Amino acid sequence: MRASDRMTQLPSSNGGSLPDALARTRSAIQPAMEHAVRRMNPDIARMASYHLGWTDTDGRPLDAPGGKLVRPALALLSAAAAWAEPEIGVPGGVAVELVHNYSLIHDDIIDGDTERHHRPTVWSVFGIGPAIIAGDALAVAAQQVLLECEAHGSAAAELLADATAAMIAGQADDIAFERQSTVSVDDCVAMCAAKTGALLGAAASIGAVLAGAPPATIGALRDYGGHLGLAFQAVDDLLGIWGNPARTGKPAGNDLRRRKKSLPVVAALAAGGDESDELRALVVGTPGAPVLDEAQVTRAAYLVEACGGREWARTRAKSHLDGALGALERVRLSPVPHRTLADLAAFVVDRES
Amino acid sequence: MRASDRMTQLPSSNGGSLPDALARTRSAIQPAMEHAVRRMNPDIARMASYHLGWTDTDGRPLDAPGGKLVRPALALLSAAAAWAEPEIGVPGGVAVELVHNYSLIHDDIIDGDTERHHRPTVWSVFGIGPAIIAGDALAVAAQQVLLECEAHGSAAAELLADATAAMIAGQADDIAFERQSTVSVDDCVAMCAAKTGALLGAAASIGAVLAGAPPATIGALRDYGGHLGLAFQAVDDLLGIWGNPARTGKPAGNDLRRRKKSLPVVAALAAGGDESDELRALVVGTPGAPVLDEAQVTRAAYLVEACGGREWARTRAKSHLDGALGALERVRLSPVPHRTLADLAAFVVDRES
Repeated sequence: MRASDRMTQLPSSNGGSLPDALARTRSAIQPAMEHAVRRMNPDIARMASYHLGWTDTDGRPLDAPGGKLVRPALALLSAAAAWAEPEIGVPGGVAVELVHNYSLIHDDIIDGDTERHHRPTVWSVFGIGPAIIAGDALAVAAQQVLLECEAHGSAAAELLADATAAMIAGQADDIAFERQSTVSVDDCVAMCAAKTGALLGAAASIGAVLAGAPPATIGALRDYGGHLGLAFQAVDDLLGIWGNPARTGKPAGNDLRRRKKSLPVVAALAAGGDESDELRALVVGTPGAPVLDEAQVTRAAYLVEACGGREWARTRAKSHLDGALGALERVRLSPVPHRTLADLAAFVVDRES
Repeated sequence: MRASDRMTQLPSSNGGSLPDALARTRSAIQPAMEHAVRRMNPDIARMASYHLGWTDTDGRPLDAPGGKLVRPALALLSAAAAWAEPEIGVPGGVAVELVHNYSLIHDDIIDGDTERHHRPTVWSVFGIGPAIIAGDALAVAAQQVLLECEAHGSAAAELLADATAAMIAGQADDIAFERQSTVSVDDCVAMCAAKTGALLGAAASIGAVLAGAPPATIGALRDYGGHLGLAFQAVDDLLGIWGNPARTGKPAGNDLRRRKKSLPVVAALAAGGDESDELRALVVGTPGAPVLDEAQVTRAAYLVEACGGREWARTRAKSHLDGALGALERVRLSPVPHRTLADLAAFVVDRES
């Protein structure tokens, strides 16, 4: 069977299942995350706790800690896949999660987003200046967590710094693309590989680095994570246009409304022809152009699909799922975490939110 | 003689003088800084080059590279003081300079400052979003430069990450103080130690770390740098009120105009009495309060001096100069760089801009 067909398999239930791995991740990661946040200046810790969904705006604890912890789960699984105890990956999981959240806090300022997961964003509650500082604090805390590891912490810190640098370069390209009338499909894919793929590649290999795994194992896991990131982004972009608002928590067609040059849109614009031209006239605006109205969003979604953008992104998601699963076959990994990593990749492509 | 009396000595001219050290720093650091910036995304590199004074807003080269490079000079001198070649400290000097500039770029956004050294700030030229990204890129590049060092790079990266975390905590306190009506002198000094002293402490010891110097040497140099930072801040705050605009490039009384709770002001407010109360009524405002007019600035400067704030800050600067010079005597340092470090401390306290 083609590797991507596995995406329809259910997670196994023999202790290596995806729900088990995510639950195990939370119990291992949460105390370490809280330790990292408690070390911060109280004003910063309050913003970090709020952003992470632990507390409300007044610092009162919330019932259920938020976040899917996909990146920490990858870090723990990568240690286990490299035949080590998953807990070896905990500092890596914490560090990657801190970098991920630092990028979200700064991205929300950059994009002017006032809500994330139905909650006001950090900058909209605490102000832009404090939110910049909060992001900066999370970024440096990530480095500290790794550099304090006795074994292989320096190699893990270098892996994460390189991934963070790539992520930042991708963010810069993303900003630049929004101001350009034309973006090539290749440039858009390269931007996603940098913005999303690099950090997921680090997440999926940092546990193996901390376990002192051989370079081939680390490389295979990083490639798995990179493909996972691109599959994730393609699915994210599909959900941004055709996602069910009840599941995604965002209005239908949200990305089109905001004229976002997401992968399906860029592919549709590159297709050429009358419908492609109509799409360009509809969604490509100068910076500061007004959002699209409902009728325009509906028409734009039709045009993206008519120009093949929807099918292109679906094919892309599946081929990166294949790439991710193929990377896992390149080296001999511990079988149970190997299967869970495969399940996780399928879950990412199959998700509806 | 008291150590602070040395501040009136002229720098020596036997190859270890301060001007020689600064010139040597520029020729060693500039190529390494350019290498670090060239690795960045082109849009980010353009903002970094502009901020560093290498290019204008359109990316055209400027004649003379800007910046005093005090922090890189400290990094090179700390390697030399620990009996190593100064060039061992180059990656440390580059990394500290990158962190310093990242903090300036973000600080200018936070403070809403539109000019720095008579040039428009990065955010005011390129926008807030791109400026956040540029700062983030410089921060992670600093870590990369150190983690790529074969010898002792990891220890240097940890030193810098800890100093950066302290700096960020100090920035958070600084923001919080601006919103408080009362700030104690102790809290204000602790904030300065974190915001300014920690990074100078790292600058003044990172070369010794990269040279593999003993912990006592590293500790003495870090303490020297921490005292230097506090002396620097006290002088900076004096110049912010009584500096000569022709020398500082800022309007006279600039900090008072902006109601900044600088060290002399906080000391004067803590003094108590009628003049202290008058000062409080004049300069302590709610966030968003209007700037002071010329007559108010003049009166506030008089009141700070009358309440002993000016003398307090001067005494403070001198006692930290003594502390810095004393720290250098705790271990056996190479004599020529030792003398240059002492000259540098005196220069910082004696400067008029």
